[in-house]
Amino acid sequence: MAMRTNLSLAIFLFFSFALFSNLALCKKVTEVEDPELITCKHQCQQQCEYTEDDKRACVQRCDVYHRTKQEREKQIQEETREKKEREMEVKGGHHHHHEGKESHDEGEQEKQQENPYVFEESSFDTKVETESGRIRLLQKFTKKSKLLQGIDNFRLAIIEAKARAFMSPLHFDSEVVLFIVKGQALLGMVRESETEKFSLEAGDMLRIPAGTPLYIANRDDNEKLFFAMLHMPISTPGKFEEFFGPGGQDPESVLSAFGWNVLQAALQTPKGKLEKLFNQQNEGRIFEISREQLQALAPKKGSWWPFGGPSKAPFNLFRKYPVFSNRNGRLTEVGPSDSKSGLEALNIMLTFTNITQRSMSTIHYNSHATKIALVINGTGHLQIACPHLASKSESEHEKSSPSYHSISSNLKPGTVFVVPPGHPFVTMASRKENLLIICFEINARENKKFTFAGKNNIVSSLDTVAKELAFNYPADMVNQVFDRKEEFFFPFVLPREERGRYADA
Amino acid sequence: MAMRTNLSLAIFLFFSFALFSNLALCKKVTEVEDPELITCKHQCQQQCEYTEDDKRACVQRCDVYHRTKQEREKQIQEETREKKEREMEVKGGHHHHHEGKESHDEGEQEKQQENPYVFEESSFDTKVETESGRIRLLQKFTKKSKLLQGIDNFRLAIIEAKARAFMSPLHFDSEVVLFIVKGQALLGMVRESETEKFSLEAGDMLRIPAGTPLYIANRDDNEKLFFAMLHMPISTPGKFEEFFGPGGQDPESVLSAFGWNVLQAALQTPKGKLEKLFNQQNEGRIFEISREQLQALAPKKGSWWPFGGPSKAPFNLFRKYPVFSNRNGRLTEVGPSDSKSGLEALNIMLTFTNITQRSMSTIHYNSHATKIALVINGTGHLQIACPHLASKSESEHEKSSPSYHSISSNLKPGTVFVVPPGHPFVTMASRKENLLIICFEINARENKKFTFAGKNNIVSSLDTVAKELAFNYPADMVNQVFDRKEEFFFPFVLPREERGRYADA
Amino acid sequence: MAMRTNLSLAIFLFFSFALFSNLALCKKVTEVEDPELITCKHQCQQQCEYTEDDKRACVQRCDVYHRTKQEREKQIQEETREKKEREMEVKGGHHHHHEGKESHDEGEQEKQQENPYVFEESSFDTKVETESGRIRLLQKFTKKSKLLQGIDNFRLAIIEAKARAFMSPLHFDSEVVLFIVKGQALLGMVRESETEKFSLEAGDMLRIPAGTPLYIANRDDNEKLFFAMLHMPISTPGKFEEFFGPGGQDPESVLSAFGWNVLQAALQTPKGKLEKLFNQQNEGRIFEISREQLQALAPKKGSWWPFGGPSKAPFNLFRKYPVFSNRNGRLTEVGPSDSKSGLEALNIMLTFTNITQRSMSTIHYNSHATKIALVINGTGHLQIACPHLASKSESEHEKSSPSYHSISSNLKPGTVFVVPPGHPFVTMASRKENLLIICFEINARENKKFTFAGKNNIVSSLDTVAKELAFNYPADMVNQVFDRKEEFFFPFVLPREERGRYADA
Repeated sequence: MAMRTNLSLAIFLFFSFALFSNLALCKKVTEVEDPELITCKHQCQQQCEYTEDDKRACVQRCDVYHRTKQEREKQIQEETREKKEREMEVKGGHHHHHEGKESHDEGEQEKQQENPYVFEESSFDTKVETESGRIRLLQKFTKKSKLLQGIDNFRLAIIEAKARAFMSPLHFDSEVVLFIVKGQALLGMVRESETEKFSLEAGDMLRIPAGTPLYIANRDDNEKLFFAMLHMPISTPGKFEEFFGPGGQDPESVLSAFGWNVLQAALQTPKGKLEKLFNQQNEGRIFEISREQLQALAPKKGSWWPFGGPSKAPFNLFRKYPVFSNRNGRLTEVGPSDSKSGLEALNIMLTFTNITQRSMSTIHYNSHATKIALVINGTGHLQIACPHLASKSESEHEKSSPSYHSISSNLKPGTVFVVPPGHPFVTMASRKENLLIICFEINARENKKFTFAGKNNIVSSLDTVAKELAFNYPADMVNQVFDRKEEFFFPFVLPREERGRYADA
Repeated sequence: MAMRTNLSLAIFLFFSFALFSNLALCKKVTEVEDPELITCKHQCQQQCEYTEDDKRACVQRCDVYHRTKQEREKQIQEETREKKEREMEVKGGHHHHHEGKESHDEGEQEKQQENPYVFEESSFDTKVETESGRIRLLQKFTKKSKLLQGIDNFRLAIIEAKARAFMSPLHFDSEVVLFIVKGQALLGMVRESETEKFSLEAGDMLRIPAGTPLYIANRDDNEKLFFAMLHMPISTPGKFEEFFGPGGQDPESVLSAFGWNVLQAALQTPKGKLEKLFNQQNEGRIFEISREQLQALAPKKGSWWPFGGPSKAPFNLFRKYPVFSNRNGRLTEVGPSDSKSGLEALNIMLTFTNITQRSMSTIHYNSHATKIALVINGTGHLQIACPHLASKSESEHEKSSPSYHSISSNLKPGTVFVVPPGHPFVTMASRKENLLIICFEINARENKKFTFAGKNNIVSSLDTVAKELAFNYPADMVNQVFDRKEEFFFPFVLPREERGRYADA
Repeated sequence: MAMRTNLSLAIFLFFSFALFSNLALCKKVTEVEDPELITCKHQCQQQCEYTEDDKRACVQRCDVYHRTKQEREKQIQEETREKKEREMEVKGGHHHHHEGKESHDEGEQEKQQENPYVFEESSFDTKVETESGRIRLLQKFTKKSKLLQGIDNFRLAIIEAKARAFMSPLHFDSEVVLFIVKGQALLGMVRESETEKFSLEAGDMLRIPAGTPLYIANRDDNEKLFFAMLHMPISTPGKFEEFFGPGGQDPESVLSAFGWNVLQAALQTPKGKLEKLFNQQNEGRIFEISREQLQALAPKKGSWWPFGGPSKAPFNLFRKYPVFSNRNGRLTEVGPSDSKSGLEALNIMLTFTNITQRSMSTIHYNSHATKIALVINGTGHLQIACPHLASKSESEHEKSSPSYHSISSNLKPGTVFVVPPGHPFVTMASRKENLLIICFEINARENKKFTFAGKNNIVSSLDTVAKELAFNYPADMVNQVFDRKEEFFFPFVLPREERGRYADA
């Protein structure tokens, strides 16, 4: 009897064990695995030429990649949370007109976490970093937001070169618009069988047609050279390649890709001599050159022949006659209508804005052009008005028109921001220094600036009756608010009535 | 013994229960869940800032959305089934040339369920609906069919405004071509620091450049105003935004997005006064105005100065000199070649077709342009010839050329249809009333109309030998069929020989 | 006691069975099914109008398609493996400059399996094959590689027509550039209400605007006619349709899609006669015609009136005055700047390269244009230099510039290859015959050819100091290598010093 009880007990224990391990197995399946991870692992299995070891390694890589991705996402959320805290301190007087929307305000501040238009240091990938220089490339715009689909084929690169740095000759499979932010450069372009040299300074702008071989050197003995290149790839959308012609080990010459027979036949030079030639250069793509070499490359002014020596850039945005200018700011432009700028074919305009300290630009928007703006000096603040994303708040059902919120950001040198056409925005300099911004305006043909404040603003331009109907307010009182004689740049000060009450913004 | 039997029985029952519940659990996993739903729920889990409650709410929303989507799909299938039944009644004489293809016929009628080119009421989303007006926006074309990828960046909006309705000033981040379908409008556009006013009538067409602030009012005291706007977004492909400048609570002014400091500094007006100004308007974006306000906005003709008062639109499609005209119909066009139309930059042409009752257009196609057509009055019928989608019928393997079928549809006011270039089509008016259609022809440069019947049709234009070879029929007998002196519009009547036999179509 | 033991045993066996079948069931679920297959089957379930039989058939089709797809993938991997073996034999002198990169070499040869730029027979789909002719269409470029996104809207068709073959009149919804590779054609185009005829020969090029009805016949009594058509679809990107106007049973006339009432009314011909007309032609879209018919279609020269008879094509690439020409090769072009070519609107250039046997083109690249090249005669070899895909080799971390490798391929008649802008490449003829290549150069406006060898090459064009800095080598020694007086085409021979040592390449 004891034996039979023992047997039953044994059976009982055995089946319990089996059952629960079964449940555990099934439970594992009911876990929702990340579909991306499932697909990744599945692809590993599908590779016919992989051995079993390869497949295991592949699956491991999927796991590692997936884990890294999750950590990165957590990190980004951390950063945005910190950023949001910082912004809430700075913003100050931000408001929302409508009473009884307190909760909506907080929801709105949470939404401002998602800022699709401002790019800081972390949005740049460092492509090249040597002792003599650094090249950083802004991520693809659509990586930040699908709203930027329209400018997906533009890439912005920022290059720093130390004193007497020389950047080896190369060409891109992209159209390039170059702008010297700071410093002095010597640029050589191969056109029509010879090298055209340009002596460039801060503010100079130059179009480099696709495929043109070029080199750049920092002409200065002490100061760094900073310049920006806007690339428009012409081969694969959103992606461009670099091709170094001359070179050696580093930079590697593109000629090294060809077979020896081809090279020997094309250059009529034996392999030994070619190997020697392509083995000399190992300094990298940016390296320091001596003063003598620099002098030979970039003869100083006062050479004997007035026609020798490098040319000046056709346009300088710091010195060009401004479109708007007063003591609060200054705006210059070079665009498709400037012949010899080469910008007509690209439909791009460059604008330079210099906002005096304690001043602001007016609230305005572009009719057609998308702005890709780079802050080159000073600090300040930016606000862009955007329509709310589809919100489920009850007030939406009662209202028939869109709601707007602002994307705000502090600006400092190196900040890049995008303003889509039609979106009103405003930029303000800080109290201590001027704010200098260079903009690449994409789709510039037919573009007009419409302002909301200052001379010729669109509210003042409305006819009287429409003004009254729109505001449900007497026209002359609307005019009192909107009419203003200054144009485009104003002091960033509160109205007289308020100045006693608050400290300056 | 009874106890041991009971024990064994208990064990048996227990394990049966456990086993079957286990099977049930595993079975649930083997159900194929909609991958979209799996992804949606997975995303909810991934949101780090969500609390457990948030995650549960998120998962619930996934379920609700998924259920709603399935119901909507069932509803759409219902509608198409009903529509197919209706069409089969009306079609009458539809045929298919080749004998022994009966089953193929039925397959073809099933295919006609999938009509990628015709859009009815259900394809429009009502974006705005107030007491004074309504704005409906056609879904993205690619939502209906991938074949319409080429016009994906065009959006069609249809607006109705009741008597004396006023639409508050706004601007779009899209190019707009406006057409007045019916009624009388007063349109104001802000250009060069002042408002240009247009007194518009049915048939008038106007290009509104992107970013231009505009307002519209229904000038009439009794009748509704209907107009269409074709949008070409310039920022995010396929999507455009509205920005209300002046405003208050409703419509909300885009200026409300900016900080108080910014507004006070830009407008030099204290916060209190600004709050008052932006708090007055709460009528919504379309509201009725009084007769006096309308008279002030839109002075009637006979004002003292011939140059004061609103302008006329540069082009009216109802009154322009026609391209083709006979007693069966009339076709007028405004396009890139008309200077001052502004259509050159957009590469768009507008055409207006007025088919007399009991008449038809010829069978024809556009060489380059895609037609986006809107029926504005009358009823009738449409047939578009399309190549068969890849079919697996055995006859395909024997034949080397494509098969064609027609997309048919009844037409009534408000129907929108698309005809891609190269596709021959025909439109017919009903017996009782004329059929009036306005078309936006996209990609109009170099466009030609090629006809298959009437004067200058392409079959008659073939040289004699080619004609004979193509039909394997004597050329003069082909000419007997195809030669015809009327041009472009014909009576929709059977040939004399057939008229006794059948009732009129 | 025996009974109870039996009972326990029975219970034991029963539960073991149930448990293991359960485990088996769960195990099946843990198999990772191809996500695509899951989605396909799920879609079948979702079709509300399907009966149960339909759903089962649908699921079966998913399985069949999935299995076929897997087999095809295995087949492709087989082919590439074989191809790799063949290339490794032929390549010969291929090299890689840097020592200590042996393993990287092998990795690189594996990478050359992935050749995104060369298309052989297997990349063409045979769309039409009759006794009299054959039409093959190259797959969509992006099917081969995402790098070709920029030319995704171009499709290349190659047509062969036997002696006296006649291709029935049709029109395309695409722009077409036609090039006669070999043979003699008679082409008729319907323009302005009549047929314009062209008597075409090898080397002739003609633009056929979208929507233009055309027919082609092989004028010759014995020889085959070969021609290429580059299509630029204007309706749905990457996809074009054919519309046969005249026709019968085969080719089916597009008019057959319309209802009988419509056809009778439009053509004023009773149904009986129409049925007869559209029932005569059953030869297919390409069929042989008699000598008399051909003579009537294409009158030989020496007709009485000099203005009667077919015209000549406006441009012949075999006979046009060359851009470069020496005894090693010859290059002719027709492009946007040639008025009456019609190529300006398309921004396309056609170039024809004839490389003498044992000769080579220089190493060069296009600044803007993408080449779609078709080898029309002879054999030879191609090398294209491309930047390495992101590699994880350690040397990348030390080096700051890209690495390059070459895409190599043998060339034979019918090979199609693509060279993106900016990528240097070289083509060489074999020892026995000339190599003839026709290229469609997409995006030709502003395009320049930059060479690396021969007269005016970009290295020689660099200024002296830049040359020395780039190579880290004395300028005159660089010049010794790169300066060369021949232009664009060279003999494919080793330098004098090497000729004793090796056999000719």
